[in-house]
Amino acid sequence: MKTLIINGTVINATGTAQADVLIEDETVVALFSPGSQEVAAEKVIDAAGKYVIPGGIDAHTHMQMPFGGTNASDTFETGTRAAAWGGTTTIIDFAIQKQGERVQDGLETWHQLAAGNCAIDYSFHQIIGGVDDDSLKAMESLADEGVTSYKMFMAYPGVFYADDAQILRAMQKARELGLMTMMHAENGPAIDVLAEQLAAQGKTAPYYHGIARAWQMEEEATHRAIMLADLTDAPLYIVHMSAKQAVEQVAWARDKAKNVFGETCPQYLYLSLEKQLGATSEEWGDFEAAKWVCSTPLRSEQDGHLEAMWQGLRTNDLQMVSTDHCPFCMKDQKELGKDDFRAIPNGIGSVEHRVDLLYQGVVDGRISLPRWVELISTTPARMFGMYGKKGVIQPGADADIVIYDPKGRTSIGVDKTHHMNMDYSAWEGFEIDGHVDLTLSRGKVLVEDGEYHGLKSHGQFVKRGLSQYLI
Amino acid sequence: MKTLIINGTVINATGTAQADVLIEDETVVALFSPGSQEVAAEKVIDAAGKYVIPGGIDAHTHMQMPFGGTNASDTFETGTRAAAWGGTTTIIDFAIQKQGERVQDGLETWHQLAAGNCAIDYSFHQIIGGVDDDSLKAMESLADEGVTSYKMFMAYPGVFYADDAQILRAMQKARELGLMTMMHAENGPAIDVLAEQLAAQGKTAPYYHGIARAWQMEEEATHRAIMLADLTDAPLYIVHMSAKQAVEQVAWARDKAKNVFGETCPQYLYLSLEKQLGATSEEWGDFEAAKWVCSTPLRSEQDGHLEAMWQGLRTNDLQMVSTDHCPFCMKDQKELGKDDFRAIPNGIGSVEHRVDLLYQGVVDGRISLPRWVELISTTPARMFGMYGKKGVIQPGADADIVIYDPKGRTSIGVDKTHHMNMDYSAWEGFEIDGHVDLTLSRGKVLVEDGEYHGLKSHGQFVKRGLSQYLI
Amino acid sequence: MKTLIINGTVINATGTAQADVLIEDETVVALFSPGSQEVAAEKVIDAAGKYVIPGGIDAHTHMQMPFGGTNASDTFETGTRAAAWGGTTTIIDFAIQKQGERVQDGLETWHQLAAGNCAIDYSFHQIIGGVDDDSLKAMESLADEGVTSYKMFMAYPGVFYADDAQILRAMQKARELGLMTMMHAENGPAIDVLAEQLAAQGKTAPYYHGIARAWQMEEEATHRAIMLADLTDAPLYIVHMSAKQAVEQVAWARDKAKNVFGETCPQYLYLSLEKQLGATSEEWGDFEAAKWVCSTPLRSEQDGHLEAMWQGLRTNDLQMVSTDHCPFCMKDQKELGKDDFRAIPNGIGSVEHRVDLLYQGVVDGRISLPRWVELISTTPARMFGMYGKKGVIQPGADADIVIYDPKGRTSIGVDKTHHMNMDYSAWEGFEIDGHVDLTLSRGKVLVEDGEYHGLKSHGQFVKRGLSQYLI
Amino acid sequence: MKTLIINGTVINATGTAQADVLIEDETVVALFSPGSQEVAAEKVIDAAGKYVIPGGIDAHTHMQMPFGGTNASDTFETGTRAAAWGGTTTIIDFAIQKQGERVQDGLETWHQLAAGNCAIDYSFHQIIGGVDDDSLKAMESLADEGVTSYKMFMAYPGVFYADDAQILRAMQKARELGLMTMMHAENGPAIDVLAEQLAAQGKTAPYYHGIARAWQMEEEATHRAIMLADLTDAPLYIVHMSAKQAVEQVAWARDKAKNVFGETCPQYLYLSLEKQLGATSEEWGDFEAAKWVCSTPLRSEQDGHLEAMWQGLRTNDLQMVSTDHCPFCMKDQKELGKDDFRAIPNGIGSVEHRVDLLYQGVVDGRISLPRWVELISTTPARMFGMYGKKGVIQPGADADIVIYDPKGRTSIGVDKTHHMNMDYSAWEGFEIDGHVDLTLSRGKVLVEDGEYHGLKSHGQFVKRGLSQYLI
Ligand SMILES: [Zn+2]
Ligand SMILES: [Zn+2]
Ligand SMILES: [Zn+2]
Ligand SMILES: [Zn+2]
Ligand SMILES: [Zn+2]
Ligand SMILES: [Zn+2]
Ligand SMILES: [Zn+2]
Ligand SMILES: [Zn+2]
Repeated sequence: MKTLIINGTVINATGTAQADVLIEDETVVALFSPGSQEVAAEKVIDAAGKYVIPGGIDAHTHMQMPFGGTNASDTFETGTRAAAWGGTTTIIDFAIQKQGERVQDGLETWHQLAAGNCAIDYSFHQIIGGVDDDSLKAMESLADEGVTSYKMFMAYPGVFYADDAQILRAMQKARELGLMTMMHAENGPAIDVLAEQLAAQGKTAPYYHGIARAWQMEEEATHRAIMLADLTDAPLYIVHMSAKQAVEQVAWARDKAKNVFGETCPQYLYLSLEKQLGATSEEWGDFEAAKWVCSTPLRSEQDGHLEAMWQGLRTNDLQMVSTDHCPFCMKDQKELGKDDFRAIPNGIGSVEHRVDLLYQGVVDGRISLPRWVELISTTPARMFGMYGKKGVIQPGADADIVIYDPKGRTSIGVDKTHHMNMDYSAWEGFEIDGHVDLTLSRGKVLVEDGEYHGLKSHGQFVKRGLSQYLI
Repeated sequence: MKTLIINGTVINATGTAQADVLIEDETVVALFSPGSQEVAAEKVIDAAGKYVIPGGIDAHTHMQMPFGGTNASDTFETGTRAAAWGGTTTIIDFAIQKQGERVQDGLETWHQLAAGNCAIDYSFHQIIGGVDDDSLKAMESLADEGVTSYKMFMAYPGVFYADDAQILRAMQKARELGLMTMMHAENGPAIDVLAEQLAAQGKTAPYYHGIARAWQMEEEATHRAIMLADLTDAPLYIVHMSAKQAVEQVAWARDKAKNVFGETCPQYLYLSLEKQLGATSEEWGDFEAAKWVCSTPLRSEQDGHLEAMWQGLRTNDLQMVSTDHCPFCMKDQKELGKDDFRAIPNGIGSVEHRVDLLYQGVVDGRISLPRWVELISTTPARMFGMYGKKGVIQPGADADIVIYDPKGRTSIGVDKTHHMNMDYSAWEGFEIDGHVDLTLSRGKVLVEDGEYHGLKSHGQFVKRGLSQYLI
Repeated sequence: MKTLIINGTVINATGTAQADVLIEDETVVALFSPGSQEVAAEKVIDAAGKYVIPGGIDAHTHMQMPFGGTNASDTFETGTRAAAWGGTTTIIDFAIQKQGERVQDGLETWHQLAAGNCAIDYSFHQIIGGVDDDSLKAMESLADEGVTSYKMFMAYPGVFYADDAQILRAMQKARELGLMTMMHAENGPAIDVLAEQLAAQGKTAPYYHGIARAWQMEEEATHRAIMLADLTDAPLYIVHMSAKQAVEQVAWARDKAKNVFGETCPQYLYLSLEKQLGATSEEWGDFEAAKWVCSTPLRSEQDGHLEAMWQGLRTNDLQMVSTDHCPFCMKDQKELGKDDFRAIPNGIGSVEHRVDLLYQGVVDGRISLPRWVELISTTPARMFGMYGKKGVIQPGADADIVIYDPKGRTSIGVDKTHHMNMDYSAWEGFEIDGHVDLTLSRGKVLVEDGEYHGLKSHGQFVKRGLSQYLI
Repeated sequence: MKTLIINGTVINATGTAQADVLIEDETVVALFSPGSQEVAAEKVIDAAGKYVIPGGIDAHTHMQMPFGGTNASDTFETGTRAAAWGGTTTIIDFAIQKQGERVQDGLETWHQLAAGNCAIDYSFHQIIGGVDDDSLKAMESLADEGVTSYKMFMAYPGVFYADDAQILRAMQKARELGLMTMMHAENGPAIDVLAEQLAAQGKTAPYYHGIARAWQMEEEATHRAIMLADLTDAPLYIVHMSAKQAVEQVAWARDKAKNVFGETCPQYLYLSLEKQLGATSEEWGDFEAAKWVCSTPLRSEQDGHLEAMWQGLRTNDLQMVSTDHCPFCMKDQKELGKDDFRAIPNGIGSVEHRVDLLYQGVVDGRISLPRWVELISTTPARMFGMYGKKGVIQPGADADIVIYDPKGRTSIGVDKTHHMNMDYSAWEGFEIDGHVDLTLSRGKVLVEDGEYHGLKSHGQFVKRGLSQYLI
């Protein structure tokens, strides 16, 4: 079956083109100057006045992840459907191994959770929650499985925490294998002391989550990860950065031509310690702020953290914006921490809104149009070894394509645009000066004219190659 | 007429694609998956096993430029022919205005020199050698003329030199108009003192050209230009950078998200103060080194300058590599400075070799394949407002395309690969592990199978838009 | 004659001592533990509960300096008397040479102005307002004359301005002779363009003095001076710094172990663009702000400049606090610029208050007690080659001693503490939690019990040696 | 009893004075101009042509310290005697508490080891090898005991190692109490992995000690300690720094006005990875290098580490030079690691040579004469709360005085100048262009005319106050 997108402006990471796009079944087979070729197609999509962009790639999600005695509220089914609504056509989720478990088992478990349940294509990073001889050995087969990145945690002692000896060993192995090391960079042991002290002082409201997780401990862990990477010559990708000083550390490493990369999330671009973690409501009192409890935490806007994240996107000291999508409902889930912020499940849901929220950055003059596409699609594809199939509209690529209307408008809120399985929206009231008109995944229309045509059987696992973004 | 390039690997700034390229007359009209479309073409080029890349753009040349009582030895005719041989399909040369002259006259003069004499497309930057009310006023019509960048000199007092008051005024005007300010960043007044002192001490050999033009004075001028740009909020492009400390200044500005850009040249990547400026020969004695007298000068390899230029290309603190092609023969030209290095015409000829020399960086593991294309073509096009027509292979683009053979080999030398009008090669003996097999300019084959098919009437003036590379 | 100071706490740059101080005629001859030696003295000063400190050294004053068609309102007589009241026992003023004048004549002129008119000891820096072969030659005899420092200006084109070629030559000479180069580091040519543009827009109020002299142009000139010093290996001392980014440049140079030093002034620690340059009054309207027109200008407190000056004092990236005392009355003098800020004589009078204003920094917890003494006396003495005679209380030193009462109080204002010849105080309303109780200059009591005992014939010229502060 | 030092040049941290020094019993009671006072003294020391300096303070020694199954070979008796020979009149040694032990017991044990055995005055820092509720509580009484500094280790897991949670708690407590936190800043867990891997590869020679303890892991731990100090607002003193990048971290913190301090040791100024850790001998083969196994390790001279330590002393980013004196004989002690560098007791003996080795830096033009005194005596006294009694020659100070002959000469070697209890000298063959002529401790002559007059009963414990060096 042939699909033809005509009259649109194709945007890639370096600029734009007036080109029609021809899709055969699941694959882009041609781009050509409008009207230059005679093509018959079963389906013709008119993109006049609109942007034709490669589908969004959200490289950091946690569908139905077990955390703190509950599970992230979006399943692979609900989460990927919401993603499709928002113009995201690929996610990379995290398979989990914990201390004492086999890596292979963790990966297999996640395959089973996702297979047959995803509206869009998906892939996995591997969490190595317990670094030992067995898990190091298991890393050797990851690349063959198409899992070319793994994640460690410098936080959460007793859960996922890896100490520096473990990190060193894992990085050595990753260097040997070509895997990308992803790092949750917060000094967990120190943060836990601060959190315990706050709780002991009766400071148990969600706000203190932001106080306990001090920026100094993000900066510190970021620097430490960089130095361990320097020692082992391993590429390093820091997830969910929110502290300006931590970004300065990444910039410092990058100025030395190190393969060090940084990811931020929409919440660190728009939401703050003062406003969201300082929020109260009639319904929830100061527990209202629990809606925005995530780690790393929201930071102080006044101290310049939010502005610094935008600046990092401009300087390319931050290369990516993922969501760290890990939603929990207030009811029964966030409520677990009603009496103690330490018991609040950590996470925010944004998988549906990332493409829009970043586009708003174009409207606001913060980033350029090609940079938008680079951030939401091209760099994620390159960073994690999918470029060519994903992240670009060119012959041979998967037909993951979004038609974006710059004259459209998107109102976000639980009663407006909201398809995630959450009883609140972290983005309630946000207005976007643009709109996802149509989402194609491997040639199949998932969303069109405000209607959903996706199927949970459509999404396929993407075997990824090694990073294509290294210098 | 249709031309079809089949079986090649198309490379762009973010990655590669297996795609056939269809050209109609002068323009790329389609890219498609090999074999997916039935296309009849008058000419079919088989690029199996080869790279299909957008033609090189050399954004800094000085064909037949008058300098120090003589003229650069390449005319637009000979220089652009050599460029074509080397895979470069666009140059941006410099039209010159001096103190007391009208900008319009300078530009008109250069139009007359180039028109009808170029094998490839060409454009102009405008040198403003005398900033005053008239020339500032004249800047207002440059963009309409397709000349969206202009250059000033912090060196060469009495010739092109602009003082800080002049620079400030020009940058204010450029900011208003959207023009890119290009800067020769060396502290000329200070350098001239040093040069005079050296000469007075009898240190007149070409080597002392490199001593007089101390790195401190490149670093200083770079910083000064950055601060004047900061004050006026004008984008800034520093030409021909060679000092590592100067690049550090650019990196410092870029870390603050300033629109500051840096260009280096092949000579600063490969040639050194120690080796080339320290050279002697039987024929020329220590005047041999005159072959490599250019400004900024070759720097010390031992002090890390060369390595720093490569690093700058890796960190993107240097975004471009142009040649500053300004060739002079030893005989009668360089010889003018036999008794005093200050009288040696400044310049090196490299327009033919840039694409090859940078490709060698890929072979040597210094840069990636997409980065090569970005450096030689895509970024120059974006930086100077030609992207879409130039710098990329996509529907609607000019069919400026090079077929590059990674298994080929190029030996550089006056009796080998050398089409520039010079009686020596600055690159004698360099061996490249690759080869320009074919050069297309707007659909016309200029070089194929080692034969030249170009015409001096082919090249057209390119009217450029504003920079597409600003953040 | 013997004078004995008993029971006091002697403070030096590294700490304190409980010691009695014995003076014989003009010189300190002994320090001893209280009561350990039997000493008969004609005069005994009881300093119980008070600080005994070396007299203040103000290394930057301009008594009766001609500027903009008028003269600084304090003569050597009135200015040094005010200094004595405020605990300052040595000033270094500036002898002036201009383009076309002989350095020797300038120095001689200033000797004549000062000799026999000073209450306290004085010395001279030499301003070289015209660098040429003659003035360079004249520099050779400066050290023999006890003038081991000279000053150039990167500002004030047409008056004192030295271009980079001149600066380079002078620094080379200074390096050879061991002289300290002092620099007024502002990019004058650029600033004059901005000032002219503001005036042309009708922005003629004093406030625009602060806008025209943008921090970027202080930062730039500071960096430029540093690089010229680096090139010539000459020590460099930047006067009257006020911009935080300029101090960052000094810190950058110092981190590389360069002999680069920075001076700030009390006005840059306490007074701001917002408050003082933004001031209006009934009497003067917005011309009220003329009281605080000085160069470099007062900077924005909100942008952190004031805080950065204090921080520089703490990190020792700023080593000294001088006053740049250059007072003008509002009546007839500042009024010259009523219609155009460019015609306002530049300067503020503080010579009387420096010791107090810095002591307030101790009270406010910004600097330590030994650091106070280091800043006001010891480092100035070392920096400018007087240590041993000045800047310290030890055997052999001149008996320049101040008894400072930490329990005293000083109210500043034209009708309160104010002995300078000005019709207003730049420090009106400032309250200091300390008090200068007694001032001794070379053994002679100048101020005691609120009475003045000084004589204008007392002060002597101090022949200085080379800097004792170089690393 | 009165002692009088005449005709000498007294040197302090800011300059010099021609002054006679009068001592009564143990205390300096007066300084006076030569000949100005009539004084009768039982002992007159003629210091004509010589320097009179405050006695050296070595703030980092480990006399008879248990380490790796053996004890440092110098007892308090032999070690302090050697110190006296070398012009050091105070040491600060380390009392040790380990996990499970009481801090009070550790301190008491060390009091017993030292009391009655020291030739010179001594004090203690407290090692807290096990941070828990008990030891944190015990810290509260340290200041009263005159122990105002304590040390933690980021290295040596299982021995002294403190994790980040422990460090955070201890720093909070130290901040509250005003104690100085001293840190052994190396990432021990990571280093131990590297060491184990090297050993497993058969790389067991002492040289690999230097490879395992990579500079990255010193830099990293330094940064981490700084950030934990930033978080808790606690002053921080990094011991025995050897890596240039680690010093850069200290400089970075100091540029922000943090109370962060750095100490290096003579071995890091003069000895290198290449030469000493690369040494072989007939007697010991490549085990010869064991003589120089200490932690942090000797670093690469070629990579600039040694030069960077000198530079740090010049910029005051390093404030102190202590010895980390911890000697072991080759025979029976260093030999423990004959088959595995990990079993070599870590340590070098230098307590005797520090004053001389630093003076050589004056001769070599690396530091100034006042800086020498500041480094060896004044800053150690201020840093660790002894200034006034120690670190300066002024009335009321302990008469700890050294007469240093700049025309003398000292040859170091086991058969030459060598009084430490070691069977080799780490400094064999070093020649110093100066000589300790006489050492006075609290008025008592310990060394004079090449003879030793000390008594092990002379030295007293010094109760220290809080740091006097904080900004
Ligand atoms: Zn995380
Ligand atoms: Zn950067
Ligand atoms: Zn996550
Ligand atoms: Zn050029
Ligand atoms: Zn000035
Ligand atoms: Zn001044
Ligand atoms: Zn610094
Ligand atoms: Zn130690």
